[in-house]
Amino acid sequence: VPALREVGEVEAIRLITRGAAARDDVVVGPGDDAAVLRCGPGEDLVATTDAMVEGRHYLSSWLEPRGRGARLAALNLSDIAAMAARPRWALLSVGVRPEHDIDALLEFQAGLAAALAADGAVIAGGNLVAVRGDEWWSLTLLGSVARERAWRRAGARPGDLLALTGLPGRAAAGFLLAHEHADIAREPMWRPLLEAWLHPRARTAFAQALAAAGVVSAAIDVSDGVAGDLAHLCAASHMGCDVEAWSLPEDSLIARAAGIIRRPVTPLRLGPSDDYELLLAVDPRGRAAAEQVARDTQTPLWFIGRFTPQPGQLALVEVHGGRTPLGRGFDHFTGAR
Amino acid sequence: VPALREVGEVEAIRLITRGAAARDDVVVGPGDDAAVLRCGPGEDLVATTDAMVEGRHYLSSWLEPRGRGARLAALNLSDIAAMAARPRWALLSVGVRPEHDIDALLEFQAGLAAALAADGAVIAGGNLVAVRGDEWWSLTLLGSVARERAWRRAGARPGDLLALTGLPGRAAAGFLLAHEHADIAREPMWRPLLEAWLHPRARTAFAQALAAAGVVSAAIDVSDGVAGDLAHLCAASHMGCDVEAWSLPEDSLIARAAGIIRRPVTPLRLGPSDDYELLLAVDPRGRAAAEQVARDTQTPLWFIGRFTPQPGQLALVEVHGGRTPLGRGFDHFTGAR
Repeated sequence: VPALREVGEVEAIRLITRGAAARDDVVVGPGDDAAVLRCGPGEDLVATTDAMVEGRHYLSSWLEPRGRGARLAALNLSDIAAMAARPRWALLSVGVRPEHDIDALLEFQAGLAAALAADGAVIAGGNLVAVRGDEWWSLTLLGSVARERAWRRAGARPGDLLALTGLPGRAAAGFLLAHEHADIAREPMWRPLLEAWLHPRARTAFAQALAAAGVVSAAIDVSDGVAGDLAHLCAASHMGCDVEAWSLPEDSLIARAAGIIRRPVTPLRLGPSDDYELLLAVDPRGRAAAEQVARDTQTPLWFIGRFTPQPGQLALVEVHGGRTPLGRGFDHFTGAR
Repeated sequence: VPALREVGEVEAIRLITRGAAARDDVVVGPGDDAAVLRCGPGEDLVATTDAMVEGRHYLSSWLEPRGRGARLAALNLSDIAAMAARPRWALLSVGVRPEHDIDALLEFQAGLAAALAADGAVIAGGNLVAVRGDEWWSLTLLGSVARERAWRRAGARPGDLLALTGLPGRAAAGFLLAHEHADIAREPMWRPLLEAWLHPRARTAFAQALAAAGVVSAAIDVSDGVAGDLAHLCAASHMGCDVEAWSLPEDSLIARAAGIIRRPVTPLRLGPSDDYELLLAVDPRGRAAAEQVARDTQTPLWFIGRFTPQPGQLALVEVHGGRTPLGRGFDHFTGAR
């Protein structure tokens, strides 16, 4: 297997940007100074960027190159989903060691391209540089949305319902199992937790169908954990929120994992966890419509609380009236995780 | 001065994306899951990405943080200029060490934002991650161009003139002086060569004015050197090109530097050098119009050769008829530089 230093940078860039199939909205694809892309009339452009660093955001022993590519796609697709936008075009920028083997790079690219394609996007351009030390992978993902129809973090109103997709905390539980109990983590029963951490899927189809229903007043994707991202949404909306403990979905697997990794269950579920689920503020009159979209797209959806007019007041409320403040999320630099 | 680990990732991202002034074409700026941007009717989107790695693309001892930001802007602006597009929005993705000081990060950001603003673009989003080892800075720059009006590498025709802006090879000469004769390089007389290497400026205004004249059939920016990038343009256009030795611009400074760094002058001028100048195929009937645009925008412009119908045949021709094949450029991985 040849290494990058043998094929050269220009050829390596060609390889990581290949497979951008001919599409009407790609006027000029990879291989020129820049890509030329075509939005439709009445569409706004939506743009996000997210990166993964070796040893920080993935461990080679837990995630093969194809999975890394798919995960980088998911991180970015989730941001586009949280804006109710349609994923369209991606630009990949990578820093890899000269001894990186070409097969591994192609596997990464294939995983990225396939995950993007599953949600309708193509790689439209890229760059590749040689690095010493840790490798990194940065993606910029562009989407489109009808004008004035993007979801934002701002917009939640008092009385709006708090909705959540999926089972939060599973990514954190999988991460902690793998890091602290590697042997146990490889047992098949924990696979769903490991999958949540290693192979997240953005809620792209659900978000687009739900956007058409017009019942969402604010949205954010869960990359910091429910408590942390709810705090971001509430801050942008100048709202508070009561999360109802009795409305959280059952998740016996995470409850069992909590015993092994010796963490209390509720903080594990609501605390730092990059689940790439969606948190939504939903007009209460739209609840049935949202539930219908969830069924249509086979998306688990839970209504777990209600927004209040007290800015910044986030609490977990118990059925008997007890209230526990929900702390903020997770920060890589300050090491809160 | 606080370090990044003390302010945290969320605050650091806020800092590197600040100053995205309110503009009509930025519907949602930094701070949401993604930015929402607005193209005009009849416009295509143009997108490029380029990165700089510490120790590879800049040396801390030669380029202060503000200059690094400006340089990253120039690398990307040059690609947008080479498409005849208008720079609009940038997304910044960085990997920095936790001990990176905030003042240096803000200086970098200020240099980047100012250089983008000078050419009409704003930072619309960003991401920041902690790294061990070498720091990296990756930018995605988006621009817009009237439909079907983007310049491409393909399109040069036999008989088209080869035009070049600026004085090629100066970036390489500055780089080599600094790396091999650091003490000499700090003498004021060499400042123009060091400037060409450290503080390149994209030919944005010239490209846009020239595009309006409608005389360019193909274009590329010079990031690999005249010979290397001319080869790329010729390959895309299925053309050859004769570069006329007698038409190259006078450059006594590079000739003097060549003696110190012990390199032959012509390879230094035409070989690997990231000058961020433009190479253009110009319709011969449009020469006067192009020269007028060059005067109007105070851009040095030289007509240095002519395209031929022999695909891939690139030669330096002498006034007495001698022909020297022009070799390909420069590759970081194979270490040709």
